[in-house]
Amino acid sequence: MTPLTPYIGLVAGFLTSSAAIPQVIKTYRTKHARDLSMWQLVMLNFGMLLWLIYGWQIGDRPLILANTFSIACYSFLIAMKVHYARKGRD
Amino acid sequence: MTPLTPYIGLVAGFLTSSAAIPQVIKTYRTKHARDLSMWQLVMLNFGMLLWLIYGWQIGDRPLILANTFSIACYSFLIAMKVHYARKGRD
Repeated sequence: MTPLTPYIGLVAGFLTSSAAIPQVIKTYRTKHARDLSMWQLVMLNFGMLLWLIYGWQIGDRPLILANTFSIACYSFLIAMKVHYARKGRD
Repeated sequence: MTPLTPYIGLVAGFLTSSAAIPQVIKTYRTKHARDLSMWQLVMLNFGMLLWLIYGWQIGDRPLILANTFSIACYSFLIAMKVHYARKGRD
Protein backbone atom coordinates (compact mmCIF):
# COMPACT_ATOMS: atom_id res chain seq x y z
CA MET A 1 0.00 0.00 0.00
CA THR A 2 1.42 3.38 -0.98
CA PRO A 3 0.04 6.92 -0.50
CA LEU A 4 -0.87 6.80 -4.22
CA THR A 5 -2.92 3.58 -3.96
CA PRO A 6 -6.34 5.15 -3.21
CA TYR A 7 -5.90 7.52 -6.16
CA ILE A 8 -5.00 4.61 -8.47
CA GLY A 9 -8.28 2.96 -7.43
CA LEU A 10 -10.28 6.13 -8.06
CA VAL A 11 -8.77 6.69 -11.53
CA ALA A 12 -9.28 2.99 -12.34
CA GLY A 13 -12.94 3.24 -11.34
CA PHE A 14 -13.39 6.45 -13.29
CA LEU A 15 -11.84 4.95 -16.46
CA THR A 16 -13.72 1.63 -16.39
CA SER A 17 -17.01 3.45 -15.72
CA SER A 18 -16.61 6.28 -18.22
CA ALA A 19 -15.38 3.80 -20.88
CA ALA A 20 -19.07 3.22 -21.66
CA ILE A 21 -19.46 6.81 -22.91
CA PRO A 22 -17.59 6.50 -26.24
CA GLN A 23 -19.54 3.30 -26.97
CA VAL A 24 -22.87 4.99 -26.24
CA ILE A 25 -21.91 7.96 -28.47
CA LYS A 26 -20.71 5.72 -31.31
CA THR A 27 -23.84 3.55 -31.22
CA TYR A 28 -26.13 6.58 -31.00
CA ARG A 29 -24.37 8.24 -33.99
CA THR A 30 -24.14 5.19 -36.24
CA LYS A 31 -27.56 3.79 -35.21
CA HIS A 32 -25.79 0.43 -35.52
CA ALA A 33 -25.21 -2.11 -32.75
CA ARG A 34 -25.03 -5.44 -34.58
CA ASP A 35 -21.43 -6.15 -33.58
CA LEU A 36 -22.16 -5.61 -29.88
CA SER A 37 -22.81 -8.84 -27.99
CA MET A 38 -26.14 -8.66 -26.14
CA TRP A 39 -24.86 -11.33 -23.75
CA GLN A 40 -21.96 -9.07 -22.80
CA LEU A 41 -24.25 -6.11 -22.16
CA VAL A 42 -26.66 -8.15 -20.02
CA MET A 43 -23.87 -9.86 -18.03
CA LEU A 44 -22.12 -6.52 -17.44
CA ASN A 45 -25.35 -4.92 -16.30
CA PHE A 46 -26.18 -7.73 -13.90
CA GLY A 47 -22.58 -7.81 -12.61
CA MET A 48 -22.60 -4.06 -12.01
CA LEU A 49 -25.95 -4.35 -10.21
CA LEU A 50 -24.29 -6.80 -7.83
CA TRP A 51 -21.30 -4.42 -7.45
CA LEU A 52 -23.85 -1.71 -6.57
CA ILE A 53 -25.44 -3.91 -3.88
CA TYR A 54 -21.94 -4.87 -2.65
CA GLY A 55 -20.89 -1.21 -2.50
CA TRP A 56 -24.10 -0.37 -0.65
CA GLN A 57 -23.49 -3.08 1.95
CA ILE A 58 -19.88 -2.06 2.63
CA GLY A 59 -20.76 1.66 2.43
CA ASP A 60 -18.34 2.40 -0.42
CA ARG A 61 -19.58 5.58 -2.15
CA PRO A 62 -17.22 5.51 -5.20
CA LEU A 63 -18.32 1.94 -5.93
CA ILE A 64 -21.98 3.00 -5.68
CA LEU A 65 -21.54 6.06 -7.90
CA ALA A 66 -19.38 4.31 -10.53
CA ASN A 67 -21.74 1.38 -10.93
CA THR A 68 -24.93 3.48 -10.92
CA PHE A 69 -23.45 5.48 -13.79
CA SER A 70 -22.30 2.38 -15.69
CA ILE A 71 -25.67 0.65 -15.30
CA ALA A 72 -27.38 3.71 -16.80
CA CYS A 73 -24.97 3.67 -19.78
CA TYR A 74 -25.17 -0.07 -20.48
CA SER A 75 -28.96 -0.11 -20.05
CA PHE A 76 -29.14 2.64 -22.69
CA LEU A 77 -26.88 0.52 -24.94
CA ILE A 78 -29.22 -2.48 -24.53
CA ALA A 79 -32.22 -0.29 -25.36
CA MET A 80 -30.49 1.05 -28.50
CA LYS A 81 -29.44 -2.44 -29.60
CA VAL A 82 -33.04 -3.72 -29.27
CA HIS A 83 -34.44 -0.59 -30.96
CA TYR A 84 -32.06 -0.68 -33.96
CA ALA A 85 -32.56 -4.43 -34.37
CA ARG A 86 -36.33 -3.88 -34.53
CA LYS A 87 -35.94 -1.12 -37.08
CA GLY A 88 -34.01 -3.55 -39.23
CA ARG A 89 -30.83 -1.44 -38.99
CA ASP A 90 -29.04 -4.37 -37.38
CA MET B 1 -22.33 -5.91 5.80
CA THR B 2 -24.03 -9.31 5.78
CA PRO B 3 -22.56 -12.83 5.65
CA LEU B 4 -23.53 -12.86 1.94
CA THR B 5 -21.66 -9.67 1.08
CA PRO B 6 -18.27 -11.24 0.15
CA TYR B 7 -20.06 -13.71 -2.15
CA ILE B 8 -21.97 -10.88 -3.85
CA GLY B 9 -18.61 -9.23 -4.56
CA LEU B 10 -17.15 -12.45 -5.95
CA VAL B 11 -20.11 -13.11 -8.26
CA ALA B 12 -20.09 -9.45 -9.34
CA GLY B 13 -16.39 -9.70 -10.21
CA PHE B 14 -16.90 -12.99 -12.03
CA LEU B 15 -19.79 -11.58 -14.12
CA THR B 16 -18.13 -8.28 -15.06
CA SER B 17 -14.90 -10.11 -15.99
CA SER B 18 -16.43 -13.00 -17.90
CA ALA B 19 -18.79 -10.62 -19.74
CA ALA B 20 -15.94 -10.10 -22.21
CA ILE B 21 -16.16 -13.74 -23.36
CA PRO B 22 -19.40 -13.53 -25.39
CA GLN B 23 -18.07 -10.37 -27.09
CA VAL B 24 -14.77 -12.08 -27.98
CA ILE B 25 -16.67 -15.10 -29.36
CA LYS B 26 -19.11 -12.94 -31.38
CA THR B 27 -16.32 -10.80 -32.86
CA TYR B 28 -14.18 -13.85 -33.66
CA ARG B 29 -17.13 -15.60 -35.38
CA THR B 30 -18.45 -12.63 -37.36
CA LYS B 31 -14.96 -11.21 -38.14
CA HIS B 32 -16.69 -7.85 -37.68
CA ALA B 33 -15.91 -5.22 -35.06
CA ARG B 34 -16.96 -1.96 -36.69
CA ASP B 35 -19.67 -1.18 -34.13
CA LEU B 36 -17.25 -1.58 -31.21
CA SER B 37 -15.80 1.70 -29.97
CA MET B 38 -11.99 1.56 -29.95
CA TRP B 39 -12.00 4.30 -27.32
CA GLN B 40 -14.06 2.11 -25.03
CA LEU B 41 -11.72 -0.85 -25.46
CA VAL B 42 -8.61 1.25 -24.82
CA MET B 43 -10.11 3.06 -21.79
CA LEU B 44 -11.33 -0.24 -20.33
CA ASN B 45 -7.94 -1.85 -20.79
CA PHE B 46 -6.08 1.05 -19.18
CA GLY B 47 -8.62 1.21 -16.34
CA MET B 48 -8.28 -2.51 -15.69
CA LEU B 49 -4.48 -2.19 -15.71
CA LEU B 50 -4.83 0.36 -12.92
CA TRP B 51 -7.26 -1.98 -11.08
CA LEU B 52 -4.58 -4.67 -11.42
CA ILE B 53 -1.90 -2.39 -9.91
CA TYR B 54 -4.39 -1.36 -7.19
CA GLY B 55 -5.20 -4.99 -6.43
CA TRP B 56 -1.49 -5.81 -6.31
CA GLN B 57 -0.81 -2.99 -3.84
CA ILE B 58 -3.63 -3.97 -1.48
CA GLY B 59 -2.91 -7.68 -1.94
CA ASP B 60 -6.40 -8.53 -3.27
CA ARG B 61 -6.10 -11.76 -5.28
CA PRO B 62 -9.64 -11.79 -6.81
CA LEU B 63 -9.07 -8.25 -8.10
CA ILE B 64 -5.72 -9.34 -9.60
CA LEU B 65 -7.15 -12.47 -11.23
CA ALA B 66 -10.33 -10.81 -12.56
CA ASN B 67 -8.46 -7.91 -14.14
CA THR B 68 -5.65 -10.03 -15.58
CA PHE B 69 -8.29 -12.13 -17.33
CA SER B 70 -10.24 -9.09 -18.56
CA ILE B 71 -7.12 -7.36 -19.88
CA ALA B 72 -6.31 -10.48 -21.91
CA CYS B 73 -9.85 -10.54 -23.38
CA TYR B 74 -10.04 -6.84 -24.22
CA SER B 75 -6.49 -6.82 -25.65
CA PHE B 76 -7.58 -9.65 -27.94
CA LEU B 77 -10.67 -7.60 -28.92
CA ILE B 78 -8.46 -4.60 -29.78
CA ALA B 79 -6.20 -6.85 -31.88
CA MET B 80 -9.21 -8.25 -33.76
CA LYS B 81 -10.68 -4.79 -34.34
CA VAL B 82 -7.36 -3.55 -35.81
CA HIS B 83 -6.93 -6.75 -37.86
CA TYR B 84 -10.45 -6.73 -39.36
CA ALA B 85 -10.25 -2.99 -40.08
CA ARG B 86 -7.00 -3.59 -42.02
CA LYS B 87 -8.55 -6.41 -43.96
CA GLY B 88 -11.30 -4.06 -45.00
CA ARG B 89 -13.95 -6.13 -43.19
CA ASP B 90 -14.79 -3.15 -41.01
